[in-house]
Amino acid sequence: MNAKAAEPKSPAEERSLDPEDWEELRQLGHRAFDDMVDYLKSVADRPAWQPLPGAAKKLFEQDLPRQGIGLGEVYEQIRDHVLPYPTGNIHPRFWSWVGGTGTPAQLIADLVASAMNSASLGFDEVASSYVELQLLNWLKSLLGYAADSSGLLVSGGSMANLVGLAVARTHAAPYDVRDQGINTSDYPRLIYYMSSEGHSSLRKAIELLGLGSASLRIVPVKDDFTIDVDALRTAIRDDRQAGRLPACIIATAGTVNTGAIDPLNELADIAEQENLWMHADAAFGGFAKLSAKSAHLVDGLERADSLAFDLHKWLYVQYDCGCVLIKSSDTHRNTFSVIPSYLRKFDRGLASGPLNFSEYGVQLSRSFRALRAWTALKTEGTDRYGQQIEQNIQQAKYLTQLVEDRVGLELLAPTAMNIVNFHYVDESLSNAEQDDLNAEILMQLQERGIAAPSSTVLNGRFSIRVAICNHRSKRSDFEALVEAVTAIGKDIRAS
Amino acid sequence: MNAKAAEPKSPAEERSLDPEDWEELRQLGHRAFDDMVDYLKSVADRPAWQPLPGAAKKLFEQDLPRQGIGLGEVYEQIRDHVLPYPTGNIHPRFWSWVGGTGTPAQLIADLVASAMNSASLGFDEVASSYVELQLLNWLKSLLGYAADSSGLLVSGGSMANLVGLAVARTHAAPYDVRDQGINTSDYPRLIYYMSSEGHSSLRKAIELLGLGSASLRIVPVKDDFTIDVDALRTAIRDDRQAGRLPACIIATAGTVNTGAIDPLNELADIAEQENLWMHADAAFGGFAKLSAKSAHLVDGLERADSLAFDLHKWLYVQYDCGCVLIKSSDTHRNTFSVIPSYLRKFDRGLASGPLNFSEYGVQLSRSFRALRAWTALKTEGTDRYGQQIEQNIQQAKYLTQLVEDRVGLELLAPTAMNIVNFHYVDESLSNAEQDDLNAEILMQLQERGIAAPSSTVLNGRFSIRVAICNHRSKRSDFEALVEAVTAIGKDIRAS
Repeated sequence: MNAKAAEPKSPAEERSLDPEDWEELRQLGHRAFDDMVDYLKSVADRPAWQPLPGAAKKLFEQDLPRQGIGLGEVYEQIRDHVLPYPTGNIHPRFWSWVGGTGTPAQLIADLVASAMNSASLGFDEVASSYVELQLLNWLKSLLGYAADSSGLLVSGGSMANLVGLAVARTHAAPYDVRDQGINTSDYPRLIYYMSSEGHSSLRKAIELLGLGSASLRIVPVKDDFTIDVDALRTAIRDDRQAGRLPACIIATAGTVNTGAIDPLNELADIAEQENLWMHADAAFGGFAKLSAKSAHLVDGLERADSLAFDLHKWLYVQYDCGCVLIKSSDTHRNTFSVIPSYLRKFDRGLASGPLNFSEYGVQLSRSFRALRAWTALKTEGTDRYGQQIEQNIQQAKYLTQLVEDRVGLELLAPTAMNIVNFHYVDESLSNAEQDDLNAEILMQLQERGIAAPSSTVLNGRFSIRVAICNHRSKRSDFEALVEAVTAIGKDIRAS
Repeated sequence: MNAKAAEPKSPAEERSLDPEDWEELRQLGHRAFDDMVDYLKSVADRPAWQPLPGAAKKLFEQDLPRQGIGLGEVYEQIRDHVLPYPTGNIHPRFWSWVGGTGTPAQLIADLVASAMNSASLGFDEVASSYVELQLLNWLKSLLGYAADSSGLLVSGGSMANLVGLAVARTHAAPYDVRDQGINTSDYPRLIYYMSSEGHSSLRKAIELLGLGSASLRIVPVKDDFTIDVDALRTAIRDDRQAGRLPACIIATAGTVNTGAIDPLNELADIAEQENLWMHADAAFGGFAKLSAKSAHLVDGLERADSLAFDLHKWLYVQYDCGCVLIKSSDTHRNTFSVIPSYLRKFDRGLASGPLNFSEYGVQLSRSFRALRAWTALKTEGTDRYGQQIEQNIQQAKYLTQLVEDRVGLELLAPTAMNIVNFHYVDESLSNAEQDDLNAEILMQLQERGIAAPSSTVLNGRFSIRVAICNHRSKRSDFEALVEAVTAIGKDIRAS
């Protein structure tokens, strides 16, 4: 008996979804790869954003086809109606939200991952299990975590935060929370602390975990948008006195609004003194550790009991690729492990892999997302990533200087790392009118295809927000931004 | 001002992660695509599973490189040490767990998605928002959901189940569960019902949601592994009498062990009578709806208030691609919506997209996984998918017949849809010895590269489990499986 499938004795009608003509697929693949290279090579020549025309929207309203139109035709539709309208984070002047850029090298990795289509279970004795474990070991070492800590690749920061806060719940609850659920009848309410600048996914996680937002204590921030440590201490003391159970301090290393970094060592000290779990949301900020010059900004991050971060943000990895690291692998596993009989591990064969990733998170089968990050890091090396990240930090400083030097523009927050907040000032207008003016400037920046910053509200004021996780940006792009904001602002006021 | 980036006036040292030589990338892309075509075209010629040799494992133990080795070299490593060792669900004789196959057409879609790297937020006015909405509309119509129901692509069935059960919690709790959390002090315990054959992710979701497994009532199954409806009715009555609050019936359309389908209409009737939420876990079974001949198997599925299913299983879509549909979009949105100021929606420009997907689930930025499913459905059309699915159902019947006809093999469960359970019988052995023998047969099937079924335990007995979500399988593959099981069983007993 050998492994080769025998010629079918089966009915003639047995078909597969493989192409009838593999050569045709090969040709299309070459063409598509050429198109993708051209697309990325020329991205700076296109607008940072452009609206979808009616023809595209019309296509996206068509009913489900009963008869297929073939891959060639589908590809034409993609090329004409999908490809020209990306979110835009691949563009050198995209600085919205916290969108990473991706790299062309990962096209190769994503192609391979698509062909292999591995289920990335971890207990399968296959390459994906080992690639992910190796990547996790690399990330632990980069971020100062011990080899015996545990980790998991997840869909992104929201899921990484959910996992971290779930493990904190296991640690803090003085009862078996997996069995009883949240027990408010017999035990005090668990309290999680985060600053008013903490990410929305943290609130969402606390709600999803059944703790309720009543378990979330929002601590005010100081002028630099970092958590007010004195207010935190007071809140913990007050909660203890009121019979509640302080459970977890959430630190943010790089707030989404301004990039502010909470005083990590101080928070870790408090967590130790108060016997609390410390979770760090370092969705993008964690990778400052890769820059020799800026690593100090996130000193203390390695003291967090759980750490959430995204490789698809400031490691420029394609979506999606997030990660969570947990110091206590036992507590991590105790939070999620359920092994039914159909997932039995064997000593030999397919199901004899190194560990079951589903014991550390929500997913069972998972995409082979590890391959793209593995490819990226091996291709460029960490030194180069450190330089790219530092380049973004320097660009944020440069933009800050440009804004400070420009009459009519004003910073709205100190630039802590890689996010710059500013607005166009016209003192003849009220605050509300100025806010509306800046919203209009932002929309026109996008509509004219010049650049795509996003916005936020800081101390009640509308801010044009430039988050730089973009390896394609150059200083000239920020110069162009400042020129355009000034010009558009004047245009609007003149008309 | 036009959108083209000006020539940099910036320091010479500004670099990007784009290749220095785009031509080299183009050549490598062609080579890689050729390799992937060859890889998939010849998959049947390779073993269904093979162990990783020492050289591969050694590579996966190397430290993180500070200096990159370049993409060409990384690709060589991938080709030599990663590519030959996939989970194996691309192989025609892979029937483990519930692994879908993927299709070659999606290589193109995945390549495009990788190049675009869209954040798939939904509130970005870009192609990915509309592609996903269109796909969701198609899926609603395929599965009998109204156009005004809501839906979301997620990482897979585990997440889809989590979302569904979270929305059920919102619906059932007689208090604001997002604010208060699970409140056991003032309100009765919510109870979710599922059969003993329900998927492990459902228990996990109930634990994660802070309900606790004490809120999960496991209802026994009948001989055909479907839920015992009388026992369910009794359990609901008992819980009400004991002052608990029945909240949700979980129906399974295709249990993971045997493919059994709970009586969906009966469960929907009970849910209506008792005013309970009905969640259906149709991770793979839902797509039986695409087969004219077998759609009746899942009649009533469209009555579920929430429906979880995977496109990466029985729609043969590449990992990862799951989906959840919810009848009440308001309850769905009320479970997850948190809109911070930095995610403000605008009337025009980049942030003027159709809706914010993060209001319907855990993730904020997401991969553009919609594109591969969209490409698959448009390429082949739903009729063709229906035929492929029916082919798998017929193959399961065929294998069932082969097992029944073969002396020395015995079925361990009725074949309800596309999963077959059987074992090798040697009546001179005890039950425990026979179970060990079958585990050994399974490992040898895999080690010899013949086929990759998985296993489970049914009524206390070890079962070789063949789950058929594979468009590459032919009847001859099942003939080969039956021959091999018999031959290996005899070999082992003889030695």
